[in-house]
Amino acid sequence: MAIAGHTNNYTTAALAFTLAVVSASAAVSLYRWRRRGEDLECRIKELEKSLGSTMEKSASERRGRVKAQQALREALAQSESQDLHNTIYPMRPIGTIRSCFSTRNGTPRQPLLVSLARACLNFDPALVPPASLEGLGEYSHCWIIYVFHLNTDIEKLWRKPSQSKLKAKVRVPRLNGERKGVFATRSPHRPCPIGLTVAKVEEIQKDKVLLSGVDLVDGTPVLDIKPYLPYSDSIQEATVPDWVKEDCLLAVASVSFSDTFCSSITSCWKLIEKNSLYSSADEFKSLITQVLSWDIRSMSQRNKPQDTSDADSIVYHLVLEGLDVSYMIDNERKILVQDVSLPNNLEDVAGT
Amino acid sequence: MAIAGHTNNYTTAALAFTLAVVSASAAVSLYRWRRRGEDLECRIKELEKSLGSTMEKSASERRGRVKAQQALREALAQSESQDLHNTIYPMRPIGTIRSCFSTRNGTPRQPLLVSLARACLNFDPALVPPASLEGLGEYSHCWIIYVFHLNTDIEKLWRKPSQSKLKAKVRVPRLNGERKGVFATRSPHRPCPIGLTVAKVEEIQKDKVLLSGVDLVDGTPVLDIKPYLPYSDSIQEATVPDWVKEDCLLAVASVSFSDTFCSSITSCWKLIEKNSLYSSADEFKSLITQVLSWDIRSMSQRNKPQDTSDADSIVYHLVLEGLDVSYMIDNERKILVQDVSLPNNLEDVAGT
Repeated sequence: MAIAGHTNNYTTAALAFTLAVVSASAAVSLYRWRRRGEDLECRIKELEKSLGSTMEKSASERRGRVKAQQALREALAQSESQDLHNTIYPMRPIGTIRSCFSTRNGTPRQPLLVSLARACLNFDPALVPPASLEGLGEYSHCWIIYVFHLNTDIEKLWRKPSQSKLKAKVRVPRLNGERKGVFATRSPHRPCPIGLTVAKVEEIQKDKVLLSGVDLVDGTPVLDIKPYLPYSDSIQEATVPDWVKEDCLLAVASVSFSDTFCSSITSCWKLIEKNSLYSSADEFKSLITQVLSWDIRSMSQRNKPQDTSDADSIVYHLVLEGLDVSYMIDNERKILVQDVSLPNNLEDVAGT
Repeated sequence: MAIAGHTNNYTTAALAFTLAVVSASAAVSLYRWRRRGEDLECRIKELEKSLGSTMEKSASERRGRVKAQQALREALAQSESQDLHNTIYPMRPIGTIRSCFSTRNGTPRQPLLVSLARACLNFDPALVPPASLEGLGEYSHCWIIYVFHLNTDIEKLWRKPSQSKLKAKVRVPRLNGERKGVFATRSPHRPCPIGLTVAKVEEIQKDKVLLSGVDLVDGTPVLDIKPYLPYSDSIQEATVPDWVKEDCLLAVASVSFSDTFCSSITSCWKLIEKNSLYSSADEFKSLITQVLSWDIRSMSQRNKPQDTSDADSIVYHLVLEGLDVSYMIDNERKILVQDVSLPNNLEDVAGT
């Protein structure tokens, strides 16, 4: 039994040892596995977080890409519609007119009618090097192809042509407002608002041309100028409809100046003479006479006097060289120039 | 001892049991933890894979967004530079010329020189309703403002103006190639490639105008037409430099036709008469005579005969109404029209 007891004791001790070893190793393994599990869980949480934020980022990039691509498609479609079948030509003006006519009102309806109507064509130096003007001074006259930039419908016509309603017929002043097809007239309101006029070439300078007899309003963008060639441009046998024939329908009887005008002009002239196209107040006065020699009032002005109770006392305005010239016209078509002043606001007088 | 032996036995059994339990539970726990670890590892692998592909996707979306935004910026910058300071006007032609002159070569250098030079202006119905032409037929002549669309530099000039090199001076045929400022000429190679010409108004139809005396090449885009007004457009006193004065420098002595031509024209005419601007082969022959009455060869053709060994035998080509007309010119400026045929390739004869 002692041996058995010893054997038992040995067995117990071995078992206890084994138990301890097993328990310890199990505890260590468990600890390791649990630790590893915790690490893995940590890593999973990190990964899940990364994945979440990356997915979010990817979605945001996708939204950005889709948005940018949509905008690009739109931009391309727009520029494509502008270039549709190569049928739209982007025209860059070669220069701008500085004219004695500050506003449309008072600007002659034809060239060469007002010989003192002066203008200066200032060239864009990037498009017009001085050498390109060599020889132009040898011609007496030149054509000017320009843009009717003051047309109220011009922005729409060029930016959104589909929304722009073109008038097929226009009212003709010579016909007392009767309508004619726009291509039978020189009306500025035409599908392609390009103007054509002729002017006298007075002097060529480095980056400008001085002109006279113009019917161009200040600020007009010029697309091209060409020499006037009598052998191709002057057609003796050309005929026009009766209603177009030159007549004196619009000529006035006389133009005279009030004392008020004569005292005002001296002080006004001092304010503008430095930048004027004219050399003296007298020359400027001659310009006024020439401009007013034709009834320059619009159809509506002639037909609808603002104050019907006393039509004779209506005061009309004309802006020349930036000065507001006021005048009256009586029933015998005699004009009295009343006053001249620096306008408070050009816009205010432009339409009156 | 028996008790102790029993106690020992109990202890051993308890220990063995505990060991078995501990071992089993450790094995189970270990199995579970190992299994969990494996699951977690699997999940991590999945997550890592997802993260990898999502990051790749995000990077690709980012590349797409950046690319689209760059393209958008470029497109916007381009359309902005086109609208720079509102100084570029998008011009849409009102119609296109169908002319008897198939190519630039042979097209007269001035209007009205060749009275049989016919053309038809076909209007864009979206821009030109028939009513807009009402009254145009009462005028004998009209101005045509058009685009020099065959200029070889036109695409560059309009698409990339900054890269387009404008020539300030051009060689003038009348001056045997001497150079003059481009604005002292009617050269098509000008900063704004707009042409101005006059034509006789023959007939107004619903959506077209028949014209004669034109110097316009087939396919010319037309921006505007305006009635010719003698009281403003015909300037009697206009003067030009000596070198421009009308002269007979370019007139030829005579134009005659070979037997080959006379037999060819009958069969050729049948091919074109249906769509021709002319009513008979004889009328077409008169057109050829009129066109060739002026030496239409270019400066380089006149100065550099292709075959210097026998300058008299050089054959020149002219394309009218789509037919290739070949001719020779001798030292006495007498022209012999040799043959007429349907060209194999318009391009081939256009430049010769």
